[in-house]
Amino acid sequence: MAKDKKQPRPKAETPKGFRDYFGSDVTERKRMLDRIAEVYHRHGFDPLETSAVETVEALGKFLPDVDRPNAGVFAWQEEAVPGGGTAGDWLALRYDLTAPLARVAAQYRNDLPSPYRRYAMGPVWRNEKPGPGRFRQFYQCDADTVGSGSVAADAEICAMLADALEAVGIARGDYLVRINNRKVLNGVLEAALVDFDQLNAEPGTMLDAMKQGLQVNNQGKALAISDAVLRTIDKFDKVGRDGVLALLTTGRRDESGAQIDGVGLSEAQAAPVLAFLTSKGADNAATLDNLRAAVGASQMGAEGVDELAQMAGLLSAMGVAEDRAVIDPSVVRGLGYYTGPVFEAELTFEILDEKGRRRQFGSVAGGGRYDGLVERFTGQKVPATGVSIGVDRLLAALRAKGLAGDEAAGPVVVTVMDRDRMADYQAMAADLRAAGIRAEVYLGNPKNFGNQLKYADRRGAPVAIIQGEDEAARGVVQVKDLILGARIAAQASLDEWKSQPAQTEVARADLVAEVRRILG
Amino acid sequence: MAKDKKQPRPKAETPKGFRDYFGSDVTERKRMLDRIAEVYHRHGFDPLETSAVETVEALGKFLPDVDRPNAGVFAWQEEAVPGGGTAGDWLALRYDLTAPLARVAAQYRNDLPSPYRRYAMGPVWRNEKPGPGRFRQFYQCDADTVGSGSVAADAEICAMLADALEAVGIARGDYLVRINNRKVLNGVLEAALVDFDQLNAEPGTMLDAMKQGLQVNNQGKALAISDAVLRTIDKFDKVGRDGVLALLTTGRRDESGAQIDGVGLSEAQAAPVLAFLTSKGADNAATLDNLRAAVGASQMGAEGVDELAQMAGLLSAMGVAEDRAVIDPSVVRGLGYYTGPVFEAELTFEILDEKGRRRQFGSVAGGGRYDGLVERFTGQKVPATGVSIGVDRLLAALRAKGLAGDEAAGPVVVTVMDRDRMADYQAMAADLRAAGIRAEVYLGNPKNFGNQLKYADRRGAPVAIIQGEDEAARGVVQVKDLILGARIAAQASLDEWKSQPAQTEVARADLVAEVRRILG
Repeated sequence: MAKDKKQPRPKAETPKGFRDYFGSDVTERKRMLDRIAEVYHRHGFDPLETSAVETVEALGKFLPDVDRPNAGVFAWQEEAVPGGGTAGDWLALRYDLTAPLARVAAQYRNDLPSPYRRYAMGPVWRNEKPGPGRFRQFYQCDADTVGSGSVAADAEICAMLADALEAVGIARGDYLVRINNRKVLNGVLEAALVDFDQLNAEPGTMLDAMKQGLQVNNQGKALAISDAVLRTIDKFDKVGRDGVLALLTTGRRDESGAQIDGVGLSEAQAAPVLAFLTSKGADNAATLDNLRAAVGASQMGAEGVDELAQMAGLLSAMGVAEDRAVIDPSVVRGLGYYTGPVFEAELTFEILDEKGRRRQFGSVAGGGRYDGLVERFTGQKVPATGVSIGVDRLLAALRAKGLAGDEAAGPVVVTVMDRDRMADYQAMAADLRAAGIRAEVYLGNPKNFGNQLKYADRRGAPVAIIQGEDEAARGVVQVKDLILGARIAAQASLDEWKSQPAQTEVARADLVAEVRRILG
Repeated sequence: MAKDKKQPRPKAETPKGFRDYFGSDVTERKRMLDRIAEVYHRHGFDPLETSAVETVEALGKFLPDVDRPNAGVFAWQEEAVPGGGTAGDWLALRYDLTAPLARVAAQYRNDLPSPYRRYAMGPVWRNEKPGPGRFRQFYQCDADTVGSGSVAADAEICAMLADALEAVGIARGDYLVRINNRKVLNGVLEAALVDFDQLNAEPGTMLDAMKQGLQVNNQGKALAISDAVLRTIDKFDKVGRDGVLALLTTGRRDESGAQIDGVGLSEAQAAPVLAFLTSKGADNAATLDNLRAAVGASQMGAEGVDELAQMAGLLSAMGVAEDRAVIDPSVVRGLGYYTGPVFEAELTFEILDEKGRRRQFGSVAGGGRYDGLVERFTGQKVPATGVSIGVDRLLAALRAKGLAGDEAAGPVVVTVMDRDRMADYQAMAADLRAAGIRAEVYLGNPKNFGNQLKYADRRGAPVAIIQGEDEAARGVVQVKDLILGARIAAQASLDEWKSQPAQTEVARADLVAEVRRILG
């Protein structure tokens, strides 16, 4: 003891960038994820829960930086544990749910059904600078179909996403799944740049790179221009049509007055890109017509438009109308990463932002088609498509709409007037619980009754039960309606308050019935 | 690309000692934990989900070994992340759910209700040698009450544990919560050793140590003897009454023939300890009488017996009879760690072990009262009591009893006979899902129909839907009962098999009704 006291006490602190979830933080998120899981399950998706820990080798993304394998991840080197890991191996916490899916799809490729539909929900970890609303551990919620190249898989995920949003309580009309396609953009670039002096379609050029879906590891000029165009359209959400036009051509001045270089295209070359971004029509049919015009003679572009047309048909067949999922070529986020269909779910209702201004809630989920999921492991290209819901954002949206509310309020608190009759109080709580009512006995020091009522308040208790010696002798209990009581305390006159309408005396045998009446 | 190929491919492997959970592995555990959570919630316990990562300083247990702070845990040193952790700080994955509770109880002590009832469910990590059934990441499920010294808190947890076991499907009579008390043992030791020549009750002696609940950091002879007695009674489960007697006195030979030293007590001194261990009577009243005799004049012993008597009364008041929770002084596991009541839940039904022998399933949960939960952080002693359910063991028990079964079977699989009519097939699946039936369209290459049926088999599909050109023209579908089909394939004669009783043709409009009929 004496020895311990000399040592400084450890700090009771959550590590920086981490947080703890209490009570309704846990149950509200759980309820939301349970509802999403039910939708995913009904669509034939199976849950997968991988270990939180992966080998750095399997995670892959960080391998190029051999000197610092843990950039961005929490990683450590295995010690020699007899029969455990090999000393020197690097392990790390997963940074997303896609890298573990890739590992699983490769590791169990002979055992898993193919195509493999799976969903995963759980924490991921990032060794990054924390900030407001930005934590080093957070939840992800993914659904992916591995091993199907059919756009039916993409359409299904869009329909499922719409169903999931409705299942958690977002009303039809308050969300929209917007769909785009990377191949259409590639086609548009092909159409735009086909006359570009310095380019031709030989291997290693930009046109060739575009035809390959820009997957070529080529550091040349072709990819640089293509990348520049991609980076530019990524800003479409922010700078709009005219801003993108300026960036594609001669550049523009940003808000701070700094000059941003342009890509160097002519206005004529930039035109198809702008036509693509703004080709959203009154309905899918009109949008598809506009896109067909925008891609011109490009074969890849035509393929992309066909895929979008197929998805529109499949969604319609599944009963998902255009007010729920619609083709929208202005969806550009992630267009550089995905290789085919790209989708994003947006909440269209308005909320007040931190400055009190009304604004659309915005994106809560995104996804698309990507290749090479397991290629790193097996050498085989396996097509895959998937979606990730932003768990914290969607939960924030539900809270903003008053939809996350934990119906399960605080427990009925049975107070302790007489320490020796604890068994009587526990019996009351047991009776309430047997009737399905959440209930607990006060277990602190019962001497100060005011503390017991303060405790009931802190617990959010709707009702407090009181039975002193006198009541026990008469076989009755006092049932205190704390919600009504709080209202009266705030509003009532002294006379009203004195009449104590919020407190009722009932026979002990009627305890459960009276509490049930109050809880409604 | 060419560059990538030169590098060896990463291994697609779960790190050693870790595992992945698929499909029903996930849903069966989730259903079990959901049911337990519901019981805990009804008892007024709130969920708490702490971060997976803690500072090594807060975890504490491993601090003494300053050269190797990560012994037993996965730990790493923070790099300098701007705004993040301080470079050099050690972080670690939590190894249980109690250490984080201690940190939270100290950190939020001004905000949490007191007493604070919380439950926690989630993975913990141990950097240990993995073995059969022993993993480096596994689930824990804890419920604790912090800040109440009342045995009502202990009784409540025992009652709640019994309710939880019934909620997951264990029948009354198939489990027993057994309760013991550390203070009774301390009293018994006092009674046994009061005449021991070398002992007196001065500070620093064994008697003093016992009176302090053996919390004294004293390396002297007193603690050594006391520890030896504790270690000996810990073997009561294995070696029985006579084995413990031998170990307390002159020693015994173990199975391998090796001589194990005894503690050196006389038979008279050992007698009260044996009386304690074997004092279980026909009912609680008889057991309590036996215990009162065993502790003799010891005040601490009397206190312990009183606590047990109070718990028996509280449990009875809560409607928990002795066939569900009973006083049983032969519960010795953890008696060295806890400071008051100790409890253990045992499943009493028999299963076949790996060698085909019948044996009781055994313990699935344990807990008790402990002091000093937050003392390391704040210097204040805070009483606490809690229970931990062995998630994997309880799930194994449910499986052994056929109670874990995932009612949610595989999905109805809509096969694809005509790639161009994907929209029709998706519409069928959508119709089934709208009726609450799990359904999916085959999304692989549809060319080989045999592969589609193999896929349905691997998915555990109860029904397959088939619609070729001919059926489409006639507005019908084939509905294949795969479960009946499998039974017929195993048992039927060729004629029976040819008549295909497992395949029915119905109008497309009757698809949902027919599938519903088959699923029952």
